[in-house]
Amino acid sequence: MAHEFVPPFFLGSCEPEEADIALFGVCWDGTSSFKAGSRFAGFAVREASFGMEEFSFYQQASLLDIKYADYGDLFLPPGQKARVLDDIGSAVREIRGKGQFPLAFGGEHLLAYPLIMEAHADHPDLAVVHFDAHADLRPDLWGDEWTHATILGRVADRIGYGNLKQFGIRSGSKEEWDLARAHDTLRPFTVEALRAHLDSLGDRPIYLTLDMDVLDPSLYPGTGTPEPGGITWDLLIAGLKLFKGRRLVGMDCLELAPHYDPTGVSAITMAKTLRELIILASGRMR
Amino acid sequence: MAHEFVPPFFLGSCEPEEADIALFGVCWDGTSSFKAGSRFAGFAVREASFGMEEFSFYQQASLLDIKYADYGDLFLPPGQKARVLDDIGSAVREIRGKGQFPLAFGGEHLLAYPLIMEAHADHPDLAVVHFDAHADLRPDLWGDEWTHATILGRVADRIGYGNLKQFGIRSGSKEEWDLARAHDTLRPFTVEALRAHLDSLGDRPIYLTLDMDVLDPSLYPGTGTPEPGGITWDLLIAGLKLFKGRRLVGMDCLELAPHYDPTGVSAITMAKTLRELIILASGRMR
Amino acid sequence: MAHEFVPPFFLGSCEPEEADIALFGVCWDGTSSFKAGSRFAGFAVREASFGMEEFSFYQQASLLDIKYADYGDLFLPPGQKARVLDDIGSAVREIRGKGQFPLAFGGEHLLAYPLIMEAHADHPDLAVVHFDAHADLRPDLWGDEWTHATILGRVADRIGYGNLKQFGIRSGSKEEWDLARAHDTLRPFTVEALRAHLDSLGDRPIYLTLDMDVLDPSLYPGTGTPEPGGITWDLLIAGLKLFKGRRLVGMDCLELAPHYDPTGVSAITMAKTLRELIILASGRMR
Amino acid sequence: MAHEFVPPFFLGSCEPEEADIALFGVCWDGTSSFKAGSRFAGFAVREASFGMEEFSFYQQASLLDIKYADYGDLFLPPGQKARVLDDIGSAVREIRGKGQFPLAFGGEHLLAYPLIMEAHADHPDLAVVHFDAHADLRPDLWGDEWTHATILGRVADRIGYGNLKQFGIRSGSKEEWDLARAHDTLRPFTVEALRAHLDSLGDRPIYLTLDMDVLDPSLYPGTGTPEPGGITWDLLIAGLKLFKGRRLVGMDCLELAPHYDPTGVSAITMAKTLRELIILASGRMR
Amino acid sequence: MAHEFVPPFFLGSCEPEEADIALFGVCWDGTSSFKAGSRFAGFAVREASFGMEEFSFYQQASLLDIKYADYGDLFLPPGQKARVLDDIGSAVREIRGKGQFPLAFGGEHLLAYPLIMEAHADHPDLAVVHFDAHADLRPDLWGDEWTHATILGRVADRIGYGNLKQFGIRSGSKEEWDLARAHDTLRPFTVEALRAHLDSLGDRPIYLTLDMDVLDPSLYPGTGTPEPGGITWDLLIAGLKLFKGRRLVGMDCLELAPHYDPTGVSAITMAKTLRELIILASGRMR
Amino acid sequence: MAHEFVPPFFLGSCEPEEADIALFGVCWDGTSSFKAGSRFAGFAVREASFGMEEFSFYQQASLLDIKYADYGDLFLPPGQKARVLDDIGSAVREIRGKGQFPLAFGGEHLLAYPLIMEAHADHPDLAVVHFDAHADLRPDLWGDEWTHATILGRVADRIGYGNLKQFGIRSGSKEEWDLARAHDTLRPFTVEALRAHLDSLGDRPIYLTLDMDVLDPSLYPGTGTPEPGGITWDLLIAGLKLFKGRRLVGMDCLELAPHYDPTGVSAITMAKTLRELIILASGRMR
Repeated sequence: MAHEFVPPFFLGSCEPEEADIALFGVCWDGTSSFKAGSRFAGFAVREASFGMEEFSFYQQASLLDIKYADYGDLFLPPGQKARVLDDIGSAVREIRGKGQFPLAFGGEHLLAYPLIMEAHADHPDLAVVHFDAHADLRPDLWGDEWTHATILGRVADRIGYGNLKQFGIRSGSKEEWDLARAHDTLRPFTVEALRAHLDSLGDRPIYLTLDMDVLDPSLYPGTGTPEPGGITWDLLIAGLKLFKGRRLVGMDCLELAPHYDPTGVSAITMAKTLRELIILASGRMR
Repeated sequence: MAHEFVPPFFLGSCEPEEADIALFGVCWDGTSSFKAGSRFAGFAVREASFGMEEFSFYQQASLLDIKYADYGDLFLPPGQKARVLDDIGSAVREIRGKGQFPLAFGGEHLLAYPLIMEAHADHPDLAVVHFDAHADLRPDLWGDEWTHATILGRVADRIGYGNLKQFGIRSGSKEEWDLARAHDTLRPFTVEALRAHLDSLGDRPIYLTLDMDVLDPSLYPGTGTPEPGGITWDLLIAGLKLFKGRRLVGMDCLELAPHYDPTGVSAITMAKTLRELIILASGRMR
Repeated sequence: MAHEFVPPFFLGSCEPEEADIALFGVCWDGTSSFKAGSRFAGFAVREASFGMEEFSFYQQASLLDIKYADYGDLFLPPGQKARVLDDIGSAVREIRGKGQFPLAFGGEHLLAYPLIMEAHADHPDLAVVHFDAHADLRPDLWGDEWTHATILGRVADRIGYGNLKQFGIRSGSKEEWDLARAHDTLRPFTVEALRAHLDSLGDRPIYLTLDMDVLDPSLYPGTGTPEPGGITWDLLIAGLKLFKGRRLVGMDCLELAPHYDPTGVSAITMAKTLRELIILASGRMR
Repeated sequence: MAHEFVPPFFLGSCEPEEADIALFGVCWDGTSSFKAGSRFAGFAVREASFGMEEFSFYQQASLLDIKYADYGDLFLPPGQKARVLDDIGSAVREIRGKGQFPLAFGGEHLLAYPLIMEAHADHPDLAVVHFDAHADLRPDLWGDEWTHATILGRVADRIGYGNLKQFGIRSGSKEEWDLARAHDTLRPFTVEALRAHLDSLGDRPIYLTLDMDVLDPSLYPGTGTPEPGGITWDLLIAGLKLFKGRRLVGMDCLELAPHYDPTGVSAITMAKTLRELIILASGRMR
Repeated sequence: MAHEFVPPFFLGSCEPEEADIALFGVCWDGTSSFKAGSRFAGFAVREASFGMEEFSFYQQASLLDIKYADYGDLFLPPGQKARVLDDIGSAVREIRGKGQFPLAFGGEHLLAYPLIMEAHADHPDLAVVHFDAHADLRPDLWGDEWTHATILGRVADRIGYGNLKQFGIRSGSKEEWDLARAHDTLRPFTVEALRAHLDSLGDRPIYLTLDMDVLDPSLYPGTGTPEPGGITWDLLIAGLKLFKGRRLVGMDCLELAPHYDPTGVSAITMAKTLRELIILASGRMR
Repeated sequence: MAHEFVPPFFLGSCEPEEADIALFGVCWDGTSSFKAGSRFAGFAVREASFGMEEFSFYQQASLLDIKYADYGDLFLPPGQKARVLDDIGSAVREIRGKGQFPLAFGGEHLLAYPLIMEAHADHPDLAVVHFDAHADLRPDLWGDEWTHATILGRVADRIGYGNLKQFGIRSGSKEEWDLARAHDTLRPFTVEALRAHLDSLGDRPIYLTLDMDVLDPSLYPGTGTPEPGGITWDLLIAGLKLFKGRRLVGMDCLELAPHYDPTGVSAITMAKTLRELIILASGRMR
C-alpha cells in the first residue's frame, strides 16, 4: 500500500529479519513489591518514541543508520512467574541464535535474570555491570528468593559475586548492605569509577543491566520504588558513553511504570535511553 | 492519653476483642490481568472513611450503634499466591472461631476463594450470591486456573453451580457465556430478580461476594477491568437492602484500585458500601 | 519465530491482506477548538484492547471469528489540514478498492469528511447517520469553514441535508439550531426514533459517523468538548444493534483525547465500541 | 486597542456598570471538612467557559442577548472566616444597591449565608430552595456552628425552617435527619415535587442555593464531599426550567474543587449551569 | 491473634507506651494561602512507608533497632485554628511529660508554633534551626498574624530573633527580606554554613523545624507553595547528618500536600526523611 | 466599587493605558508536533501568579514598583496559522507604537516569529538570544516550513544566522546539528558563555526568546516536547541576571502546556520567570 501507516513502533524500525539489533518489550511486574505497572511500559515507550528525534547529540549518530527492529512485547501472562522467566529465556535464545543483539526493555528487574543467564551461557566469562538505586541482593523478599529485589543475588549465585559491580545503589536492607560490602560490589556512580571498572575488564564480554530508577525520581518518577538521591540524566549519558568500544554482549533497560507519571517524562526518558543503547549496541555490530 | 489520636481506621471502630463484626483489608492483586493496584485499597478506603457520615439514610442506622472493628490489612506479600490464599483462609477461620462476622475488602476477586470456602466449611448448604461485571467462570486464564477471572468457577467446582447465582454480569469470554448458560447462573440485576432469588433460598445461609465493578465505571473507574454498562448506586443500594433479614453468613467487597481514580470517588464509594454492609451484617448479630 | 510477540494491536487482528475489515487510526486534532489530544487515541485504544474480551455479550459474536486487520495509524502531520484530509481520502480509496470495509477511529470529527466523501463516491444515494453531542453544522468557526464544528455542514453541502439525520445532539450555536430545524436533521436518541429512521431508509447504503461524545461525559470524559446530558452505554449499544442487517457501507468512531481521562475508561469504552462496530461490519461481509 | 484580547472572563460578559446581572466568584474553602480546593473554582470555570456555546438548547436563549458582567473573584483571604462572610455580605449589598441580580459561584456552601441573608434583608418573606446532597443542618461540626455542614441550619435559624425546602439530600448525620424530619424540609428531587413546591410559593420571592454536589459524582467528582446517588444533568436542567417565570431574587452555584477532577468535566458542568442560571436570572429582569 | 495484620503505620513501630520517640501526624492546613491539602499527609506518608527500607544507608542504622511509635494523627478539625494550636500544644506537653521525643509531621508550618513553644518551655535557651524555602517572617498575611507565612516571626517574637537561623530561604516579601536582614537570620544552605552555625551553638538545646519545601519542587512538588531553586536530597541528607551528636530536643517535618503529587514521590520523600529523623532522634536517647 | 474583586490577572497589574510593560498571552499550539496544550497557558499562569510573592530575592525588586499591565490573552483561533501570526504581529506593532515593552508568554515557539520580526522592524541591527532545548532550525517539519521546530531557522533567514546565538540546545535532527555547526549558533548554557556573548554585543539591541523547555523536565514537565538534560532554575536565574543593564528591546517566554503537569509546578515556574522578566524589562524603562 502506498500510504504510510505508522505501526506504534519506534521510528525507523526495520523488519525483524533484517535487523542487527532486536528490541523487544518484557512488560511484566508480578513481583513488584510496592507499585506495579511496568506491564504497561511497552505502550508508553512507543508513544513517547513518536515525539523523539532519531539523532543523538550525545553520540552523534542517527537511528536511521542502524538496522534494528522492534519485535513488540513478548506475551507474558500476569501472575505466572516460572512461565514468564522460561519464555523470556527461550525468546532471547532464539534472538541470539539469529546473531542479533537482544535489547529488552520495560518491566520489573527480575526479568533480567533470563536475559543475563542467556548471555552467560554464550559468554561464560561474562561481567555484569548493574546501574540501579537498589542493590537487589536480598537472599529473599518475604520468603521468596525470586523477586525484583533479589535478582542480582540470584545472578551472582550463578556468575559469582566477583563478576558483578553495582553503580548508583543508595537503598537496601542491612542484609544487602553487608552482602555488598562482603563482596565489594558497590561503586559510586562517577565517570571515574565506571571508567576504572570498565578498563579493568579489558576485553571481557559485558552485560549492562539498567534499572532506570538509578535516575533521580525528580526526572523519573514513573517507577515502582522511586528513591531520592539518584543520578542526573547527564551523568547517565556520560556513563553510557564510556561503554563505547567495549565488548557489550547484552543490555536491558527496565522498570518503567508509566501510569505513575502522568507527565509522561519517565516514558520519554526511557525512550531516549533506548535510542542511546541502540546506538551503543550498533557499535558492536560494525 | 487524653488526646484524641486518630488511627487511620474507620469511624467508630472498636477494639478487635469487643467486636461483633471484623472488618479487614485483603489488599493483593497478583493475578490482575489488566490494571493492578488493588493492593492499595486499604489506605484509600480508610482515608475516604474520614469524610464519611456514620449514619445511613438508606438503612436508617448508625455505625456508632454497631460493634465492629477494623483489624487493618492482612499482610499479603506480592507474587506469592498460594501463601496468600492460605493466610486469608486461616485468618478467616480464626475470626469465625471467635464468633465474629468476617467482612473482607479491597483486593482482587481471587481472594474471595478462601473467604467463601471458610463460610462453606461452616455452612455446607451455603448459597453464593455474586455481584459483578464479569462472570469469573473461565476454566483458566492463559493456562492458570486460579485467577481473578476464574474464581467463581473454582467456587462452583466446590459448592456446585446450582448454588451460585450471578447478578450484573455483562462481559466475559464465549466459554464463560456457555458455562453460565449451561448452569443457568446469570440473572439480570433488578430488584425483582434479586428478590425472587433470595426468596427462593428461604433460610439457607448466604454469602454475598461483591465485586465493585458491578457498578458503572462512570461512578467507579478505580478498578482493574472497568466495564461500561454497569448498575447505578441507587440500584446497588436497593439490591443490598433486600438482604435485610436474610441469613447472611459472610460478605466481601473487592476490587478497588484507587490510584486509577484520581478523583477519589471510587474509594469513597467503597467506603460507603462498607458502611451499608456493616449495617447489614449487624442485623445478623442482633 | 516461535515466540509470541504482541504487537500493540487489537486482539486477533489478522494480516492486512487477509482482512475483510480494515481498522485504522486517524489520529489528528488540528482544529479542536477546546482541548486537543485525539492525536494520541491510537496508542490508548490499543492498550485498552489488551484488557478487552474478544466476545460480545451484546451481539453474541467473537472477534476471533472475523477477518479484520489493524493497519496502524495513518501518518498525519500536525497542523497540515489540507494534506491530512487528502491523505485520508486516498487511503480510504485504496482500502475500498481492495473490497475491504474501512473502519477509521480516533481523531477529531473533521476527519470524517474524506471518509464520508469516499463512501459517497461509491454510493451516490448514501444516507448519513450521525451520533454526536454537537450538531457540527456551523457555517464556520471563527471564519474557518473546515473544522470539527462545521464538518456535518460541509457533508450536507455535498450530499444534501435531506440525507443527514442526527441523534443525540444537545449543544450548538443558535445558527446551528436554526439550520438543523430548517432542514429537520435532529432526532432524539431513542430506540424508537432510530429504528423509524433506519426503516425509512430501506435498502439505501448507510454511513454511520459516531462522535463518541454522544455518550455522557460521566462515562466518557476523555474528549475535546465534553457535554453533560449524553446517552448511556446501554442506549448506545441498543442503537448500534439496530444497524444489524442494514446496508452499512462505512463507519467511523472518533474523538478520543485519552490524556484527559487518567482513569482510562474513555479508551476502554472506545475499544469496546470498536469491537461492536467490527462485528456489525462483519455482518455486511457475510 | 483594535486587537481582541480575551480577559479570562465569561463569553460575552459586558462591563460591570452596564450589567443587569452581576456574576462573581466567591472562592474560599476554609471550613471544608474533607477535601478543600473550591478556592480555585474561579480560574477553572472561566477556562471552561472558553469552550462553551453561548446558546442554550434547553432554554432556547443566548448569553449574547443578556447584559451580565463577570466582576471577577472577590478577594477572600484563606483562614479568615469572619472577615470573609462580612466582605461577601457588603459586596452583595452593593450589587443589590445598584439594582443588579447577584449570582455568586465557586466556593464552599458556608458562603451562601451572607448571600441569602442579604436577599432576606431585602425580602423578609423570602423562601429558600436548596439543592444539595447534604442537609447542611448540623447544629455544629466538631463544635463549630459556622461551617459548610451547618449553613442551612444557620439560615433556618434566621428565616425559619418553614421557609426552607431541600431537594436531592441523601446524606447527613442522624441529628440532621431528625431535624429535617421534624421541620419537614426534605423533598425528593423530582419534577413533580419541585413544581408542587414552587406552585405553593405563589408570588413569594425565591432564593435558589445550588450546591453542585446534588449531581452524581460520576458527572461531577470535583467537589469536597462527593456523594454517590445524585441526580443527573437532565434532571437538574428540568428542575431549573421550573423556575422560569417565578420570582427569583437571588441564586448561587457553589462547591467546585477543580483540582480533584483532572478531566475538567466538573468545571465545564458548573460553567454550563451558570449559563442556565444567567438565562433564568435574565427572565426576572425583563 | 496469630495472623499478622498491618495497621497502616510505619514499619516496626512499637506500642506507644514502650516508645522512646513519639511520631504523630499534625495534618491540618487551615491557613495555607495557595494550595491546601496537607491535611491528607498522614495517610500518604504511611502508605509510602510500606514500600520503604527500614535501614538507612546514610546513617547506617535501622528503624528496627529503635523504640519509636506512631501515635496516628492528632484529631484537628478544619477551620478551628485556636483549638488546633491548643490541642497540639497540650498533646506535645503530654508526650514530653512521658519522656518521649516528639516528632510531628505532615501539615502546614503554622503547626510548628506550639511544637516549638513546648520545647522552649522545657528549654528556655532553645535555638531554632529552620529549613525552608520561605522565611515565614511576615508581620501578617492579609491582616492575620497567625499563618503558615508568619509563624517564624511569631516564634522569634517569643524566643528572640537571635535564637533563630534559617537555611534554604529563597522567597518572601520585601518586608520579610528586610526583617531577616535586620536580624541576620538567613544563612545559605551549605554544609559549611550549617556546620558553622551548629558548632556555634555548643551544647545549647536545638529544635529543628523542617518545611519540606526547602527541597526543590522537581523532587517534592506535593506542597502548598512550591518554590523552584531548592536544595537536593543529597544536600538535605548531608545537612541532617550534621545534627548527629548535637543536643536535639525536638523536630518537626511539615508541609506535604500529597494530592498535588500524583506520582507519590513527595510522600515517599517525607517518609524517608522521617526515617532519618527518627534515627537522629534516637541518638539523643542513647 | 469599594470591594476588591480580583480579576484573574497578575498581582499588581495596572491598567493598560498606564503601563510601561505590556504582558499578554499568546496561547496557541497549532503546530505542536508531540503534545499540544500551550493554548491553556494563560489560565494556568494567572492562577499560579495568585500564590507568588511580588518581590524577587534574585533581583531585589518588587512588581509593585513597576508599571506593567496584563492585557489578557490575544484571541488566536485554533488551526488558523496565518491569521494567528498576522494578528500577533499587528498587536505587537500597536503595543510598540504606544512605547510599551511587549512581553508575550504562553504558547508554542512558532509564535515568536512575529514577535521577533516586529522587534527587528524597529531595530534592524537586532541580535537574538535563544534559550531552548531544541535548535528549532529545521528547514521543514514533515514538509512544513512554519512550525515550532523550524521557527529559528525562519528568523535566521531574515535576520541572518550571524545574529542568532542559541543556549541550552540538546536535541535536534542531524540536519539541524549541521546547520547550527555551519553557522556556529550553539553555545553551552553557562554563565561564562552567556556573559561573553552579551559582552560581544555591546550596545546592540537584544531580543531574548525563551522556550521554557530549556529547563530540565524534572522541574518543568508541562511542555510539549520535554527533553532531559536541561538547565536548573538557579542557572536560568543566573543567566537572566546577566541581561541587567543590557539593551533589551523585546522578550518572550513560551511553551507551557499546563495540563501535562498536574502538580502545577510548571505554571508556577513560568509565573516566577515572568516576574523576573518584568523586572528586567523595567530596567530598560528607567
